Amino acid sequence: MPGRNREIEALIEMMARLPGLGPRSARRAVLHLIKKRAVLLGPLADSMHKVAATARECSVCGNIGTTDLCEICADPKRTNGELCIVEDVADLWAMERGGAFRGRYHVLGGTLSALDAIGPEELRIPQLAARVAAEHISEVILALNATVDGQTTAHYIADELAPTGVRVTSLAQGVPIGGELDYLDDGTISAALRARKGI
Amino acid sequence: MPGRNREIEALIEMMARLPGLGPRSARRAVLHLIKKRAVLLGPLADSMHKVAATARECSVCGNIGTTDLCEICADPKRTNGELCIVEDVADLWAMERGGAFRGRYHVLGGTLSALDAIGPEELRIPQLAARVAAEHISEVILALNATVDGQTTAHYIADELAPTGVRVTSLAQGVPIGGELDYLDDGTISAALRARKGI
Ligand SMILES: [Zn+2]
Ligand SMILES: [Zn+2]
Repeated sequence: MPGRNREIEALIEMMARLPGLGPRSARRAVLHLIKKRAVLLGPLADSMHKVAATARECSVCGNIGTTDLCEICADPKRTNGELCIVEDVADLWAMERGGAFRGRYHVLGGTLSALDAIGPEELRIPQLAARVAAEHISEVILALNATVDGQTTAHYIADELAPTGVRVTSLAQGVPIGGELDYLDDGTISAALRARKGI
Repeated sequence: MPGRNREIEALIEMMARLPGLGPRSARRAVLHLIKKRAVLLGPLADSMHKVAATARECSVCGNIGTTDLCEICADPKRTNGELCIVEDVADLWAMERGGAFRGRYHVLGGTLSALDAIGPEELRIPQLAARVAAEHISEVILALNATVDGQTTAHYIADELAPTGVRVTSLAQGVPIGGELDYLDDGTISAALRARKGI
């Protein structure tokens, strides 16, 4: 575009591709960053470099951290026999903001979807039964979104785990139909956890 | 927050402070960036470093570029005797997207505001009369937002420039009351430019 430098143009284009941002908010954000480049743009770039170099998936649960075992999997106080299954890391973070869950997580990386040809092998499902046995899990809590795909996945996992004899529950009260965990307030998530029921 | 690494936490907090982003969209954006860290996060950080190191205000018009004179001020084809006055760089970019203006710009850096104690000295207003004389400007086009402060500023500038005898016009038709330039579609801006009238 005339009047705009090539490097600035490239930065705006990259920012505009982020979820939740469009061309207009990307332009606004970049102008804001340039105006405060010493205190904002430089430090933000440094922070991104640091995260790009260190971020990795936890080899056990799929949470994002900077070590092979994430902070939760490495915390001996989080071994209460409960394993919470979530679709993605944003949902794990939402559960943690709720603050009511003290066990460990298993991040599926999505839901089963016939339409998108996503089967169990595309998700972190095959590892699940082994984790339940190895970590002496007494209860698996399904904290999946209240969508069709989320509920299909929940039932699939409950069936898969039936031979292990582990108790399988799911978040119940408080999750609205069609609702996604990451949109809920923290109190709602805690209430849903407390009112969980057998599946 | 438990379950989230300190560096990732810091990145989310910085992103959440950008205009148009909140905590939730910042979390989504950062997770997206981490998932595609090789192709997105690294290049975005590089781009930010490049812009942070090179971005600067044009010493003549206040546009953002990477050289002392911005691309527009350095372009000899943009000397048609017209000078367009805008509040900020986002408005300059909006005018350029319209594509109808072929002269040069003068970025005020805001509007006069009694409430915020912003007087002419806080803006790029004192330099204006000198530019009009030095660059043989035949017409000053006021492309300020249709807000109270924008219009107060327009009248102040028109009064300041009266002794120079230069023709002062303003964008007219098409700019809705209370509207801000950067929200308008490109065609509206072009129409408003064509229908400009004396002030
Ligand atoms: Zn983990
Ligand atoms: Zn310039």
